[in-house]
Amino acid sequence: MNGVVGSGADIVRAFCEAWGARDLDAITGFLADDIFYHNIPMAPVIGRAAVSAAIAPLVSSCSHIEWEIHHLAEAGAVVLTERTDRFVRDGRTMSVRVMGIFELDAGRIARWRDYFDLMEWQRQIEGES
Amino acid sequence: MNGVVGSGADIVRAFCEAWGARDLDAITGFLADDIFYHNIPMAPVIGRAAVSAAIAPLVSSCSHIEWEIHHLAEAGAVVLTERTDRFVRDGRTMSVRVMGIFELDAGRIARWRDYFDLMEWQRQIEGES
Repeated sequence: MNGVVGSGADIVRAFCEAWGARDLDAITGFLADDIFYHNIPMAPVIGRAAVSAAIAPLVSSCSHIEWEIHHLAEAGAVVLTERTDRFVRDGRTMSVRVMGIFELDAGRIARWRDYFDLMEWQRQIEGES
Repeated sequence: MNGVVGSGADIVRAFCEAWGARDLDAITGFLADDIFYHNIPMAPVIGRAAVSAAIAPLVSSCSHIEWEIHHLAEAGAVVLTERTDRFVRDGRTMSVRVMGIFELDAGRIARWRDYFDLMEWQRQIEGES
């Protein structure tokens, strides 16, 4: 249990803060067992264990993560965000401008879709090597 | 004047419908004089005349346009959307999965940012040639 009680907006804000804490268990604790996670330009990842495996390398390799929420609005059980997600790895800051939508079910994130320009992200990841 | 009176959500829904009507004057009528329009992977376009010039070729060359709103939420004067924008040109359908944010001021769209994968769009545009 993530222990968060509140509106969808509260849950999504706490989820973004968990990324900032780089706490994989806390992050995945917000996700439904059958989470459908879709970075839109990429293939979806389904299920909490698969999402955990997908994000673990990024979370563990960064010395700093900060997801800045610029705007957030909710309608029923759906929360829409505009964010800048920043990651510091090996002293380099990578950031991606993103809008994401979170569909809540029973206090957990059941469907999560992030919209961003894949090349913007890949240029930064590949720039490291 | 676009003649729309209502909440930011009403204005954004009507704006998306104006795209469906392929009516350039109706579309640009929703925009503030100093509109700041940013397709995030591209350079921003500033001012209603510049936006009109930027979108006119697309609007005039399509036989059908439909912007489907999947989700919409508003917070104050800001409206966030998840959409699929479809365009039919020369019998081919092009579509882009997008989230967009609209900041309203005095009943018009003053700032508009769309987040999408540029390659997804470019592949379809270039596939036409």
